[in-house]
Amino acid sequence: MIANTPPAPYYAVIFTSLRTEGDNGYGSMAQEMDELAKQQPGYLGIESAREDLGITVSYWRSLEDIRNWKANTEHLSAQKQGREKWYEQYKVRICEVERDYGF
Amino acid sequence: MIANTPPAPYYAVIFTSLRTEGDNGYGSMAQEMDELAKQQPGYLGIESAREDLGITVSYWRSLEDIRNWKANTEHLSAQKQGREKWYEQYKVRICEVERDYGF
Repeated sequence: MIANTPPAPYYAVIFTSLRTEGDNGYGSMAQEMDELAKQQPGYLGIESAREDLGITVSYWRSLEDIRNWKANTEHLSAQKQGREKWYEQYKVRICEVERDYGF
Repeated sequence: MIANTPPAPYYAVIFTSLRTEGDNGYGSMAQEMDELAKQQPGYLGIESAREDLGITVSYWRSLEDIRNWKANTEHLSAQKQGREKWYEQYKVRICEVERDYGF
């Protein structure tokens, strides 16, 4: 669903990825990381879709919250496995959301 | 594919949407808008995926380039049709990309 974020400014991490072939434990770990992210201080929401390309955008209260989540021990282990076996290619973009609108 | 953006800072528009039922001319217009966006000054790339949720992230050199694209006449007509018939719900987030990394 569309994340119900508070009024701007807040922060976004855009994670774009191309997967390798096969699951290799990815599915269960992705679900685990989703659950774990939700429990972190400053977490505001997440949006995710995958076709050829996967895009996950997570929203955060501050850059410090993003740094803390990146440094989370279980998340570090998932990131390592991501680089080693799940992703052919990926890009992480750290953004400040300056303005938003919609309906 | 993952957009080959220049070194940060640059800007991102995160467009998250839930579609209505049926195509109603959406597919051809989406393709047309993709092509048109690529021709705009300051366009840096686009990334897109849809499952239940659709996420399209377009990248731009400046906020002014984003404003100009939003005000493009053909794009305005597409935005109007989007609100009237293609989208159940959507959110647009205007962001400054402060940092990126990946492989």
